[in-house]
Amino acid sequence: MSPSGLSRNDTFDSPPFNRYPQWVLSKLRPRAVSLIQQVHEWVETECIPAEQVMKAQVEQNTWQTPELMHSLRKKAKSRGLWNLFLPNHFKESPGLTNLEYSCCAEIMGRTYWAAQTMNCHAPETGNIELLAKYCNEGQKQKWLKPLMDGEFSSAYSMTEPDRASSDATNIACRITREGDEYVINGRKLYGNVKYNPEMKVYILMACSDPDNPNPWRRHTMLLVPSDSKGLTIKRNLTIMGYNHAPEGHGEYVYENVRVSKENVILGEGRAFEIAQGRLGPGRIHHCMRLIGQCERAYELALLRCKDPRKTPRGKLIGQFDSNIERLATMRLEIDAMRLVVLNAADTMDARGNKAGRYVIAQSKILVPEKAAKIVDECMQLYGGQGLTQHTPLPEIWTYARFVRVADGPDAAHRHQVGRDQLKTFEATRRRHVQYADKARVLRKQWGVENDEGEFEWEYIPPGEQKL
Amino acid sequence: MSPSGLSRNDTFDSPPFNRYPQWVLSKLRPRAVSLIQQVHEWVETECIPAEQVMKAQVEQNTWQTPELMHSLRKKAKSRGLWNLFLPNHFKESPGLTNLEYSCCAEIMGRTYWAAQTMNCHAPETGNIELLAKYCNEGQKQKWLKPLMDGEFSSAYSMTEPDRASSDATNIACRITREGDEYVINGRKLYGNVKYNPEMKVYILMACSDPDNPNPWRRHTMLLVPSDSKGLTIKRNLTIMGYNHAPEGHGEYVYENVRVSKENVILGEGRAFEIAQGRLGPGRIHHCMRLIGQCERAYELALLRCKDPRKTPRGKLIGQFDSNIERLATMRLEIDAMRLVVLNAADTMDARGNKAGRYVIAQSKILVPEKAAKIVDECMQLYGGQGLTQHTPLPEIWTYARFVRVADGPDAAHRHQVGRDQLKTFEATRRRHVQYADKARVLRKQWGVENDEGEFEWEYIPPGEQKL
Amino acid sequence: MSPSGLSRNDTFDSPPFNRYPQWVLSKLRPRAVSLIQQVHEWVETECIPAEQVMKAQVEQNTWQTPELMHSLRKKAKSRGLWNLFLPNHFKESPGLTNLEYSCCAEIMGRTYWAAQTMNCHAPETGNIELLAKYCNEGQKQKWLKPLMDGEFSSAYSMTEPDRASSDATNIACRITREGDEYVINGRKLYGNVKYNPEMKVYILMACSDPDNPNPWRRHTMLLVPSDSKGLTIKRNLTIMGYNHAPEGHGEYVYENVRVSKENVILGEGRAFEIAQGRLGPGRIHHCMRLIGQCERAYELALLRCKDPRKTPRGKLIGQFDSNIERLATMRLEIDAMRLVVLNAADTMDARGNKAGRYVIAQSKILVPEKAAKIVDECMQLYGGQGLTQHTPLPEIWTYARFVRVADGPDAAHRHQVGRDQLKTFEATRRRHVQYADKARVLRKQWGVENDEGEFEWEYIPPGEQKL
Amino acid sequence: MSPSGLSRNDTFDSPPFNRYPQWVLSKLRPRAVSLIQQVHEWVETECIPAEQVMKAQVEQNTWQTPELMHSLRKKAKSRGLWNLFLPNHFKESPGLTNLEYSCCAEIMGRTYWAAQTMNCHAPETGNIELLAKYCNEGQKQKWLKPLMDGEFSSAYSMTEPDRASSDATNIACRITREGDEYVINGRKLYGNVKYNPEMKVYILMACSDPDNPNPWRRHTMLLVPSDSKGLTIKRNLTIMGYNHAPEGHGEYVYENVRVSKENVILGEGRAFEIAQGRLGPGRIHHCMRLIGQCERAYELALLRCKDPRKTPRGKLIGQFDSNIERLATMRLEIDAMRLVVLNAADTMDARGNKAGRYVIAQSKILVPEKAAKIVDECMQLYGGQGLTQHTPLPEIWTYARFVRVADGPDAAHRHQVGRDQLKTFEATRRRHVQYADKARVLRKQWGVENDEGEFEWEYIPPGEQKL
Repeated sequence: MSPSGLSRNDTFDSPPFNRYPQWVLSKLRPRAVSLIQQVHEWVETECIPAEQVMKAQVEQNTWQTPELMHSLRKKAKSRGLWNLFLPNHFKESPGLTNLEYSCCAEIMGRTYWAAQTMNCHAPETGNIELLAKYCNEGQKQKWLKPLMDGEFSSAYSMTEPDRASSDATNIACRITREGDEYVINGRKLYGNVKYNPEMKVYILMACSDPDNPNPWRRHTMLLVPSDSKGLTIKRNLTIMGYNHAPEGHGEYVYENVRVSKENVILGEGRAFEIAQGRLGPGRIHHCMRLIGQCERAYELALLRCKDPRKTPRGKLIGQFDSNIERLATMRLEIDAMRLVVLNAADTMDARGNKAGRYVIAQSKILVPEKAAKIVDECMQLYGGQGLTQHTPLPEIWTYARFVRVADGPDAAHRHQVGRDQLKTFEATRRRHVQYADKARVLRKQWGVENDEGEFEWEYIPPGEQKL
Repeated sequence: MSPSGLSRNDTFDSPPFNRYPQWVLSKLRPRAVSLIQQVHEWVETECIPAEQVMKAQVEQNTWQTPELMHSLRKKAKSRGLWNLFLPNHFKESPGLTNLEYSCCAEIMGRTYWAAQTMNCHAPETGNIELLAKYCNEGQKQKWLKPLMDGEFSSAYSMTEPDRASSDATNIACRITREGDEYVINGRKLYGNVKYNPEMKVYILMACSDPDNPNPWRRHTMLLVPSDSKGLTIKRNLTIMGYNHAPEGHGEYVYENVRVSKENVILGEGRAFEIAQGRLGPGRIHHCMRLIGQCERAYELALLRCKDPRKTPRGKLIGQFDSNIERLATMRLEIDAMRLVVLNAADTMDARGNKAGRYVIAQSKILVPEKAAKIVDECMQLYGGQGLTQHTPLPEIWTYARFVRVADGPDAAHRHQVGRDQLKTFEATRRRHVQYADKARVLRKQWGVENDEGEFEWEYIPPGEQKL
Repeated sequence: MSPSGLSRNDTFDSPPFNRYPQWVLSKLRPRAVSLIQQVHEWVETECIPAEQVMKAQVEQNTWQTPELMHSLRKKAKSRGLWNLFLPNHFKESPGLTNLEYSCCAEIMGRTYWAAQTMNCHAPETGNIELLAKYCNEGQKQKWLKPLMDGEFSSAYSMTEPDRASSDATNIACRITREGDEYVINGRKLYGNVKYNPEMKVYILMACSDPDNPNPWRRHTMLLVPSDSKGLTIKRNLTIMGYNHAPEGHGEYVYENVRVSKENVILGEGRAFEIAQGRLGPGRIHHCMRLIGQCERAYELALLRCKDPRKTPRGKLIGQFDSNIERLATMRLEIDAMRLVVLNAADTMDARGNKAGRYVIAQSKILVPEKAAKIVDECMQLYGGQGLTQHTPLPEIWTYARFVRVADGPDAAHRHQVGRDQLKTFEATRRRHVQYADKARVLRKQWGVENDEGEFEWEYIPPGEQKL
Repeated sequence: MSPSGLSRNDTFDSPPFNRYPQWVLSKLRPRAVSLIQQVHEWVETECIPAEQVMKAQVEQNTWQTPELMHSLRKKAKSRGLWNLFLPNHFKESPGLTNLEYSCCAEIMGRTYWAAQTMNCHAPETGNIELLAKYCNEGQKQKWLKPLMDGEFSSAYSMTEPDRASSDATNIACRITREGDEYVINGRKLYGNVKYNPEMKVYILMACSDPDNPNPWRRHTMLLVPSDSKGLTIKRNLTIMGYNHAPEGHGEYVYENVRVSKENVILGEGRAFEIAQGRLGPGRIHHCMRLIGQCERAYELALLRCKDPRKTPRGKLIGQFDSNIERLATMRLEIDAMRLVVLNAADTMDARGNKAGRYVIAQSKILVPEKAAKIVDECMQLYGGQGLTQHTPLPEIWTYARFVRVADGPDAAHRHQVGRDQLKTFEATRRRHVQYADKARVLRKQWGVENDEGEFEWEYIPPGEQKL
């Protein structure tokens, strides 16, 4: 029985479960069903209705975590709705599979900051996963534990203004070793602002050995306390004009910043090894939440469609069959995106993060672009009002648009997928050569006189080519 | 162990399995794995290489089933690769679930006529399902059995030239009862041509009771032998110029055609009941096969990308990163479509055809349109050659384009989905009213003075509206 | 000779002229060439480089027109770069044709507020045109003259929160006559904010005669001073989060606002007559400027393409041929949009505003949607940076997106065009009947035996249908 | 007065003139108006109604020019509707400008073969232009005159199966000089089939000097009589299955084909010079005609919209507002494409073919892709029927799709445009440096303290980069 006293079947016919595909429902363990249900109730009753209060508190104290957020975090933690994202193969994990957590994450996505109430927000999720995987015990005590306990917050510091950071080998921020310290010089974009006093540590990716012949061994990851001397923030970067307070996106200058050698993660020159390992579930939490955002936007579209106050040419918006088609298209595509994200989660559960590389890329490439289009369409249904603060749609759109460039623009991910695909050329070619060989036999056998036969398979390349 | 002697894991790393999502692989029973493997080998070695011979034989005798087809059908049947499509809840079924069959159908889709070698082709699959579900024993003996044995072929006769048949209540072809016979008058489009002597029976949907106040009780389904007097074929309808021989698409005139009253299916006025029941797996077999067609087209694109003979501006086609992005986009979208189709199949397995209505519509709406776009892109990679008979791409595109209008244009399906969505309005509205109610409490509790508060939720409609 | 001392031909090979099509260049009179050149130099040297100062001044005094703006307006006016938009058929006009002004407007579009320095900004342009066309002399002295002199600013007040205002017959804000005054009650969206003390008058469209059987005679336009008692502003409406200060978009409540009967424009019940007349050039000034905005965004994309600091995978952004294709596509589409806008202007010049209705709609429908897509693509080329304040792209995108809903969402305009198109049905049908008649004669003449002839033209409907 | 006795103004309000933009109408000289009117009447009364007869005659004698075609050509020629395409700067020209001819060409496009009745069809138009420009007098007498008189037909032979011919430097078909003859060996695609006895001469582009260090001097153009020994046709290439009889698209083998040295055009090694010169109006005749094809398809869509026989859910197709929006979108986009094509023609008139390179590319890239989409949409409005021979839509779509790859796929043209655009980088960069310089001055002048100023223009690259 679910916490609401419904049988499993009844439960599955109600939100949030009634949107999940059958194959997912059949994989949810009772504890997960219960947690998903609790997350759902939490977001519905504690988060969405509190959006206005949260906004008011942020406006009052732009770069302070609002009191309401502290209050909600305390409450959520006490209910066990905490760190749910950490996959069950970590000893620190509350035990959900990636698939089960995806269901939670979608729900959290319904309001921008809901994930944070449960300590499941970016960049903490990726950072916690990284620290759990690669830190030594001392580092874990010092940084991982308080992060998991929600005592302070962290940032990931990789992108640079002067580099094409989507290809991380370009990263130029310089680390040099001096005695027991590392000295850091460079500029970084993104990573939460240090205006917020709870922001305590940066996971910095920087170049420690620029002349190493192996470009994948030149970089190092360091833990940099936010109060380090020489680390200054130039300003907060707005995203389409939004400040995304109270976390924001800082623009930083490192000028002879010194940190202890204890702060190196895993070892010098091992940043790519770590980055590789970071390519796990954390990379698609954004996508999971985007599904929830789309559902929220879609609900607003639905409301508009039968709003009796809006009757152009004497009909409700939803009586125009063009809008009926639009609703249908949105519904179908949101549900198709969900299949993509859930499949990515399930693949990571079954075959590990590395095998999941393709499905993660599939989510990152397909979901944000489609999500932005869907939300844009919802805004359009609201006419001029859709762009104003009368609805949450502009913020939802901006978030979706942001995710399309976060972790690298989608073109970079497509290139990776495309290059991998080209590697399947030779196997494909060989198979076609077999078709052609057999075809020759069959033509002879059936007496098919085909003067043109030589051309029929001419799309088969004559031999392997190196790219 | 699979028939090829590989372990389950090894098997799953090779085609055709390596494209299936993890959750599907985990549901395939050993017998299904073996059958999928056999279908794969059958198509790879007996069908694709035989395409030229098949084409030559069709050209020699346009409206005769080619000798090669008869030969392949006999062989496939003897190996048990026969009627695989019939879901396992039918007693006549070979036992595959819809999900398992989907994997087979995708493979069959790789060559246009491969499904027919295994008696899994349209319209037989839909017709056999219908007859298995609704015929009496006598009818089954007379029509179902020989169809399942592959002794003759059948057609479904619904569309009319003068009606918007996507709304089947418009169907006007007239049936009147005279004594022990029905007399039929009208015109019909589609349904295989009767030029082919193996074409023996039409499942006709026509209007028997035009004045019935209930528009869903006006129509009847009849079995009409193709040699009935008065049933004439005006011509074969080409699809984008292709004749689709030797089955074709007939344009028919019924002029005082008489059939025995024994030939009524289920009873007079029950056509919609039957049509409703037909809305099962048969409706998405086309979509399943389209995935296979897309894979085939994709492989050709891949071949082109490293063809050493094609080096515009000194680079291989696949060295242009624009084409690398195109390959990636195609790969990602084919795989996303497969998720949609497989989910539809799985939903029907788990919850029945009726509950599957939405997922069936999702497949029918999303897959053919996307498939046509992908194949079009593959053609474009081949330049002028892509449109000629040098590749199978023009035929693949035409098939995808055809599926977009078969069983009704996609707009009709979108309307249905959209109208269903509008029914969720009131529940959505009520939820938003609850948000607003709770928000008022929270604003008060946190002392948020918000003069503008009254506007904040103004997108919530004041009350339910009837559409 | 142009002001820069170049011959006409040399001039036309340089910016801004080298983007204009040949047929436009040949229509530009020498004075227009000179003015366009001056506007170009003005924007290049006085506006674009001043963007940062303007932003800083607005931030200091959000709802005050910045000192810089006053200074620039004074200077531009003294140079005769003032009110250029007013078409040459008005006696108050500086004499440019719509086509000539379009060239100016595109240039003004390069920076958001440049038009305002020349008193060519929305909503003044539409308002001035309206007042020049419909006001009596007294009203002109009181309102038109100071607006044209730039002494204060005005707003257009039509949209309502509770109505589908794209169909203006829905407008519900109520005007009642009491003695020598009108009393107004209702709510309005948009129209500049009255926080700005220079904002002096609203052109209000409201309902004065709700029971008039003719729905086009129910509404009246009134001049409403912004300091009227009872007229309160609830808040500024943000557009995608931007406040668009110092003009903004107000949300207003009219509560027993009283204005003199002298303030009615043209007469009671004549609002639609006026609105109809307002459907002139003012409606596409936004589109003209959007072309300039797109050019600006495009230039940034170009800069990114050869920025030596950005070399993912060792290549400049512009060495990726995918980006070369993107540049080309943007370039081609911006130029195609320009053709659409310039043709609209030229058509109004030649055949008047009414005949121009279709071409105006063409601009309003095609240009903003395409512009938003192009700017979005430019942002994407900048990766994460493209969404931040590091470039003006987010503001440019937001403006394009806003224009897509300003003056009604594009769907409303498409409906109008589509309904007009359906009126051409009968003429089209008749022509096809003639084809078929003649075809019958020809078939006979050439002895073409065509048993299927009856079907060949069957797409011709049997007779006219009323929609 | 026009031939129909209407005044210029009345004429311009009727088809075909009422679709042309104002600026075009004002440029049409009376003789052009009269010719356009005659072409219109010719196509309306002699061509469209004769489509069935033409099809029947082609089916009877696939590779013979039909008797009807001969008859129509004779009649059109006698009326002076002949060779209208040849621009007025050729002495052989009938005197129309490119712009005036564009109006004719659109009309001719309404039926596939109408241009041929007036000797304005591809590839003759491009070939005649080439011969008129580059042949010596003897060649003109022998080849150009009979082509212009319509006595036989010609083909252009460039594309090769084993090369990326869109980059013509790849062309490998080999010409070697032996005594007074050239010997040719190689394979070619496209160029009309020689099954048709009226097909007399190929303009062959082939490689005569493969080792020339200048890749633009390696190729030569030759006139090759179609009855040359050793020139064999392998088969006709179908386009999406259509044979395009009676001209077709041949696949050729040249095996020691010998032609006289008299047959070289302009001289050895000058093929690129000629090809360059061929980049004139002939390249966009296809685009001009596509507009006419789209209009034809659009008219069918309109007919469908009010066809009383088609009433899904009780409404005419055109009563669904989704279809009203579709009609509008198609109408607007056809008209926007026409602006692009007409502007290209006008630019060539005013500034020559070379200056027209960009606008030609604009047409070739934008028009065919959009045209194919529009026709596809029209087909979809017809449901299943739209793909059959019940309408001409499948053939129209195929033609549009074909044009997208004819003369090189659109990607090749986009690359050319994009590369040209990148050349404007440095001028653009310099302009931005000036903005930044002036901005610094202004910030100082206005006392704007902006610590972040240094970042504001950071998108300006530090210096020029070579691509």
